[in-house]
Amino acid sequence: MLYMVHMQVNLPATLPKAEADRLKADEKAYAQALQREGKWRHLWRVAGQYANYSVFDVAGNDELHDILTSLPLYPYMSLSVTPLAQHPSAIAAN
Amino acid sequence: MLYMVHMQVNLPATLPKAEADRLKADEKAYAQALQREGKWRHLWRVAGQYANYSVFDVAGNDELHDILTSLPLYPYMSLSVTPLAQHPSAIAAN
Amino acid sequence: MLYMVHMQVNLPATLPKAEADRLKADEKAYAQALQREGKWRHLWRVAGQYANYSVFDVAGNDELHDILTSLPLYPYMSLSVTPLAQHPSAIAAN
Amino acid sequence: MLYMVHMQVNLPATLPKAEADRLKADEKAYAQALQREGKWRHLWRVAGQYANYSVFDVAGNDELHDILTSLPLYPYMSLSVTPLAQHPSAIAAN
Amino acid sequence: MLYMVHMQVNLPATLPKAEADRLKADEKAYAQALQREGKWRHLWRVAGQYANYSVFDVAGNDELHDILTSLPLYPYMSLSVTPLAQHPSAIAAN
Amino acid sequence: MLYMVHMQVNLPATLPKAEADRLKADEKAYAQALQREGKWRHLWRVAGQYANYSVFDVAGNDELHDILTSLPLYPYMSLSVTPLAQHPSAIAAN
Amino acid sequence: MLYMVHMQVNLPATLPKAEADRLKADEKAYAQALQREGKWRHLWRVAGQYANYSVFDVAGNDELHDILTSLPLYPYMSLSVTPLAQHPSAIAAN
Amino acid sequence: MLYMVHMQVNLPATLPKAEADRLKADEKAYAQALQREGKWRHLWRVAGQYANYSVFDVAGNDELHDILTSLPLYPYMSLSVTPLAQHPSAIAAN
Amino acid sequence: MLYMVHMQVNLPATLPKAEADRLKADEKAYAQALQREGKWRHLWRVAGQYANYSVFDVAGNDELHDILTSLPLYPYMSLSVTPLAQHPSAIAAN
Amino acid sequence: MLYMVHMQVNLPATLPKAEADRLKADEKAYAQALQREGKWRHLWRVAGQYANYSVFDVAGNDELHDILTSLPLYPYMSLSVTPLAQHPSAIAAN
Repeated sequence: MLYMVHMQVNLPATLPKAEADRLKADEKAYAQALQREGKWRHLWRVAGQYANYSVFDVAGNDELHDILTSLPLYPYMSLSVTPLAQHPSAIAAN
Repeated sequence: MLYMVHMQVNLPATLPKAEADRLKADEKAYAQALQREGKWRHLWRVAGQYANYSVFDVAGNDELHDILTSLPLYPYMSLSVTPLAQHPSAIAAN
Repeated sequence: MLYMVHMQVNLPATLPKAEADRLKADEKAYAQALQREGKWRHLWRVAGQYANYSVFDVAGNDELHDILTSLPLYPYMSLSVTPLAQHPSAIAAN
Repeated sequence: MLYMVHMQVNLPATLPKAEADRLKADEKAYAQALQREGKWRHLWRVAGQYANYSVFDVAGNDELHDILTSLPLYPYMSLSVTPLAQHPSAIAAN
Repeated sequence: MLYMVHMQVNLPATLPKAEADRLKADEKAYAQALQREGKWRHLWRVAGQYANYSVFDVAGNDELHDILTSLPLYPYMSLSVTPLAQHPSAIAAN
Repeated sequence: MLYMVHMQVNLPATLPKAEADRLKADEKAYAQALQREGKWRHLWRVAGQYANYSVFDVAGNDELHDILTSLPLYPYMSLSVTPLAQHPSAIAAN
Repeated sequence: MLYMVHMQVNLPATLPKAEADRLKADEKAYAQALQREGKWRHLWRVAGQYANYSVFDVAGNDELHDILTSLPLYPYMSLSVTPLAQHPSAIAAN
Repeated sequence: MLYMVHMQVNLPATLPKAEADRLKADEKAYAQALQREGKWRHLWRVAGQYANYSVFDVAGNDELHDILTSLPLYPYMSLSVTPLAQHPSAIAAN
Repeated sequence: MLYMVHMQVNLPATLPKAEADRLKADEKAYAQALQREGKWRHLWRVAGQYANYSVFDVAGNDELHDILTSLPLYPYMSLSVTPLAQHPSAIAAN
Repeated sequence: MLYMVHMQVNLPATLPKAEADRLKADEKAYAQALQREGKWRHLWRVAGQYANYSVFDVAGNDELHDILTSLPLYPYMSLSVTPLAQHPSAIAAN
């Protein structure tokens, strides 16, 4: 089941650089593992923003919640979640 | 080059059903042709809304504008356009 | 799987009363059938508004979309959909 | 009498972890006691958010205010309150 | 139990004057009857607007909903409802 | 002359408790004195919020400004002010 | 006593030109009479908008309400009203 | 040439009182000098707010920018600027 | 003197096509004449929208107002106007 | 390919002046180098704001993202990006 998620990262200026670097490295590893598993199906940078649009393919709302709240940068993110359905004009199944 | 587009359709109650049906059929044919060409890369229905999230893969801003304003339902749509860039954590190229 | 849905009904003043009455009766029958099936788990009126908060229990995003867009009053509604997950402090399962 | 309450928790990054853990444990105990009493009738996590939708069943506005402002996490919450009435299409009484 | 209600009236320009006059007269009679009963405790005009702030004193959410949706001008109003509680610094009981 | 005022209090988490307690006590004394003088005519708590709706009866804009900016909690408040006029359907004079 | 008023005029496309012209002429006459009386102290066009910022000098909220709701174009306006007080740094009295 | 400017001051609670007092005194002197020069034509307090509406009469956008960004309190202000034109119903020239 | 103007065109579905075509042709001729005069310095289409960003170079607020309100499509536009000043890092004069 | 970018700078009051001065000098050098290369085609100050409107001429979304996120003041900016297309009434090519 698919969900569109918009993530906006807001790292406070007071976060030490080493801590920020560690969080970003963890985030990258976590994001790439989920992409390889097929659960984080798409990940695009919003041009000019520290933000992304992502599509997740998960079993349902609970799995989505677990994945998102486990993001290393989650405490510094604003997220919006939009559940997606099959579009009747799409030539591919969701 | 990729763009995220959110389309919200607002058909007026006064639009005759035959005209609405014709517009929707034209829209479907147009959307499927562009998907087959690879320019309308993704098309998802927003659950519970007469709206979609779409990803377009086009040469640039001008081609995107031409494609969107040629949508049969364009006069009845509210659109928002977000240019997308390569995300450093994505395992696939845009 | 649960979803919170807020529905706001906006019947145009130009809708003939007989048509409005028929739509409302159909809506009521449809809503009660879905409640009896257990898919429309809760239905509350927002005090002072022609609006409701509802909780749906469905298989996923696609079933939710089908149910909502089949509402007789759907063309006259503004809807917002929020996917719900299990709360760790809830004493009951979703 | 029922009220829909949306709670969004915003714990500051500067809150010491031990203090945050204590507040969360207190919040959980408080929430479960009120659920067992039947006053906090429903509690759902908003998927992807540190937020919930809750339905309270209390004597009125004053009791609701007392319960909400006694939440251990109240100083870190944004709340919105919506009074609910009986819906004419609901098959169950509020 | 008290509720603050803000009512904004939006009469369409297409409403015949006789119909508008009749609705306003009915609204006035209804409002004054409820004031005399003590249920519509305060009624103030917002300066410069076709709008009012009102305080209702009713048994609860259901009675408030019945009173508001019975307003003759209700189909032409936007309403917002705020439940009120006793303020600890108020020298009078609600 | 009457004004509706909505006050939202936002005490920073960093304010020492003793200072907060002193400010709240001063605020209460000030609010009660003005109520006894008849200038702060109504004071209601917004259920679930650290906020109130108040009605002031003062000579005009300047006196209102002086009273509000002298509130002990004023530096921590967001206020909105709405001038009120006599409503033609009110059975009491303002 | 002074009030800042922002007026935005929204004439519907369906209003016959003769009727619009008559309303505008009446509005101009009314506005100029009030300016000569000193009650409509300032009147400025917002550049690029069918809107104005105005300052009224009236006895209070009730007189302001009467003046504004008597504007010939009032049924086609969105207004916002801001009560003004003496500024401590102003070199002139209000 | 005239501009309407709305200024909202937000002094942080952490600003030392002596520094705040100095800034306010400087602001007052600066505002009064500009009023005497005729460049800051009007200055009104928004009732209940640490905010003002002001009208500036300057040579153009550049002079306005220089004047506003030289305000001693500028780093603590939110400003909005609206260019004003001659209103056809005004009895006085701008 | 420069102004950034954002124009959004909203042609009603009820406008006859011949009238719409005539307005668009007039708008184009008017826009091109002003560009040739150097007053409408830049004109860009917003990708995917019936909207543009434009930069005007005019004597001041009054000339800007006259030009904008003379646009053939003006009655069907929403406009926002932002006065521009010389940027200290710009390598060219405004 | 052109993009309109609005940048709003929000330097925290806690940023040391020397650091702010260094960032501003770096920003100016960077902005002027990009203007000379023709990639930062226009740069205008928003009158009264620590903000600018800029037009970038770059190869596409990725180059735009790289340029913007390399701005020395980027961590202190809010940006919005609007892709621009050729306007059919423009007398010059984009």
